[in-house]
Amino acid sequence: MDLYKYKEIYRTNLLDDVIPFWVKNSEDKAYGGFFTCLDEVGEVYDTDKFIWLQCRQVWTLSMLYNQVEQNQEWLDMAVRGAAFLTKHGMDSEGNWYFSLTQSGEPLVQPYNIFSDCFAAMAFAQLFKACGDENYKVIALATFNNIIKRKENTKGIYNKAYPGTRNLQSFALPMILCNLVLEMEHIMDPEIVESIIQQGIHSVMDVFYKPELGLILENVAPDGSFVDSFEGRLINPGHAIESMWFIMDLATRTGDNELIKKAVDITINTLEYGWDKVYGGIFYFLDVKHNPPQQLEWDQKLWWVHVESLVSLLKGYQLTGDERCWHWFEKVHAYTFEHFCDSTNGEWFGYLDRRGKVLLKAKGGKWKGFFHVPRGLFQAWKTLDAILTKNEVLTPTEK
Amino acid sequence: MDLYKYKEIYRTNLLDDVIPFWVKNSEDKAYGGFFTCLDEVGEVYDTDKFIWLQCRQVWTLSMLYNQVEQNQEWLDMAVRGAAFLTKHGMDSEGNWYFSLTQSGEPLVQPYNIFSDCFAAMAFAQLFKACGDENYKVIALATFNNIIKRKENTKGIYNKAYPGTRNLQSFALPMILCNLVLEMEHIMDPEIVESIIQQGIHSVMDVFYKPELGLILENVAPDGSFVDSFEGRLINPGHAIESMWFIMDLATRTGDNELIKKAVDITINTLEYGWDKVYGGIFYFLDVKHNPPQQLEWDQKLWWVHVESLVSLLKGYQLTGDERCWHWFEKVHAYTFEHFCDSTNGEWFGYLDRRGKVLLKAKGGKWKGFFHVPRGLFQAWKTLDAILTKNEVLTPTEK
Repeated sequence: MDLYKYKEIYRTNLLDDVIPFWVKNSEDKAYGGFFTCLDEVGEVYDTDKFIWLQCRQVWTLSMLYNQVEQNQEWLDMAVRGAAFLTKHGMDSEGNWYFSLTQSGEPLVQPYNIFSDCFAAMAFAQLFKACGDENYKVIALATFNNIIKRKENTKGIYNKAYPGTRNLQSFALPMILCNLVLEMEHIMDPEIVESIIQQGIHSVMDVFYKPELGLILENVAPDGSFVDSFEGRLINPGHAIESMWFIMDLATRTGDNELIKKAVDITINTLEYGWDKVYGGIFYFLDVKHNPPQQLEWDQKLWWVHVESLVSLLKGYQLTGDERCWHWFEKVHAYTFEHFCDSTNGEWFGYLDRRGKVLLKAKGGKWKGFFHVPRGLFQAWKTLDAILTKNEVLTPTEK
Repeated sequence: MDLYKYKEIYRTNLLDDVIPFWVKNSEDKAYGGFFTCLDEVGEVYDTDKFIWLQCRQVWTLSMLYNQVEQNQEWLDMAVRGAAFLTKHGMDSEGNWYFSLTQSGEPLVQPYNIFSDCFAAMAFAQLFKACGDENYKVIALATFNNIIKRKENTKGIYNKAYPGTRNLQSFALPMILCNLVLEMEHIMDPEIVESIIQQGIHSVMDVFYKPELGLILENVAPDGSFVDSFEGRLINPGHAIESMWFIMDLATRTGDNELIKKAVDITINTLEYGWDKVYGGIFYFLDVKHNPPQQLEWDQKLWWVHVESLVSLLKGYQLTGDERCWHWFEKVHAYTFEHFCDSTNGEWFGYLDRRGKVLLKAKGGKWKGFFHVPRGLFQAWKTLDAILTKNEVLTPTEK
């Protein structure tokens, strides 16, 4: 299939299917905020409000407004979502709760720092869309709070006995690599630069293990391997997603060596994490081939696949590496065959190992209006850039 | 198949297969305590010590000594396990940690009250085996601690925002129904009686919902239904297992009405939780047919099946209800075909929906030397009792 056709698939799936599904079904017009627990046809089956997904939806709507089209409906919906979040989302110290009831009462305490990460990302993007300084203030205060909580993200809810087996986890450094670019327009350039350097170092020197060609999810404070369930864990989707964050950072400074390394890790992780029997990318693996503790290890998740498509396309755009294109076509075929719901729109989130739909819902506690639209947008724009470059390079072959 | 053949299957699987597998492979002779992360052939793949499973193994070895055979090897191993637990298992206030390193350093804080429940059970049973008063003291102190922590079992690790949506959970009242009989020999009879009455009330009047014919995992403080992920959750294995605890309590007082009710709930829950397509009992279901948040909802777990066999046999023994025998044969056939490993011994713990082995290990963080041997023992002895009764009733047909 040619590049143009691929581009059209991503563009139309985003604009004609995924965005309308969420715009139509997700807003809570009674209490504000968004319903994310939407069933196969878009009906609400649970009304709890999970901060990750509330923030992510504000971010996606604002990003679409900033980058796709200045659609007032999207911006207004983002602003209404932000109002609900500002009113109900934080405790008195500015920490973001994990979840709220439909009307905004706190349900689960602020034990999860990623709520704060997605809040900072949302308010920074919304500030970019409308220029309201209040959003900038919230984004920056939240970011400072994240940095303050960085060393013990769970705070008083941390169940690890101090000192016995301290682990550092990949998720936060990985997210910071993306968040720093999301917030660059409102941050001190020196801080931006220092976070970028720390982020690249963490991902590529600490968690990436050259002898394995893989990224570990948890390592000792000195970066060494810890032979435990957590230490042996490989999360291929996480590793591959982080590689497009790294490519974005490397592109900024034109660091081609770093881009090449990120492409190699993407390909290695896909070769390692691809299910050779049934296709698709495993959710969790144990690096020593032991049983992982996650019973869902062999399932195929939407975000793992959509983020892989982005890394592969960016890798192809930046290096022309044919392995990226080969893998892109393979992952694309699997993804669009298994996850997209051509009957009722949007994507299923969870497949069993064989690719059969495991949960019919389009959204839930963890799946909202984020990975699919962001991935479709990134893939569309990257394919566009590749097409434009090709036109410039070979105008007669068009 | 006749009763005698069934009895022999359970007896020989216990004595010739399951017990030797754990006795041979699980003891840590260097540091004390037990390895529970055993792979397909019994090799250790992780050395962490999980308190649930350490305690459960002490309990099982002591129970076998008390009820099957006064085998000194079993008792000695239980005593050595108890020594490791006594030395390393508790914090300074007598709360049981969740897990330790191989050498006994605390890894995860005492956030989980079931560690304490299994500790009380283990030390009470070991006291029965050897009469050492120190074990009795630990069992009673731990039990008092459980009662003290009952209203907020997770203590400072509780992430629920106080007051918004208080839920009571089925697991603790259910466990107490079993624990009280385990500890009867060392407890004040009045306390025993009061805990039994509370336990029966909780299980049968609060969590059991006659209009559904099912037990809910979480309800509001007043017992009412809460329309949330937790409130909609059905755990068929939990419900069915609790029914043999209830039958044991009812047998003690000859309460035939209660026994009949427990049998009805067992059968209803099996009819509800049985996978009509691939066989086996689902792990989790949502009572309103929404997607549960547990991605492993459709998997088939060893403990669910072995505990169901016990409830069905006890139900049949106590009532003669033919539905119990019919379901027993069906669950037995599924269980012995799919979970038992005739090549390397012991049982697999986790199957996918279709009954294919999902994790090849024989033990891990949650599966140890407990449900399988306890279930095999209970089934063997119950079949024995049915056979004896039949002999008494129809001696000529023997």
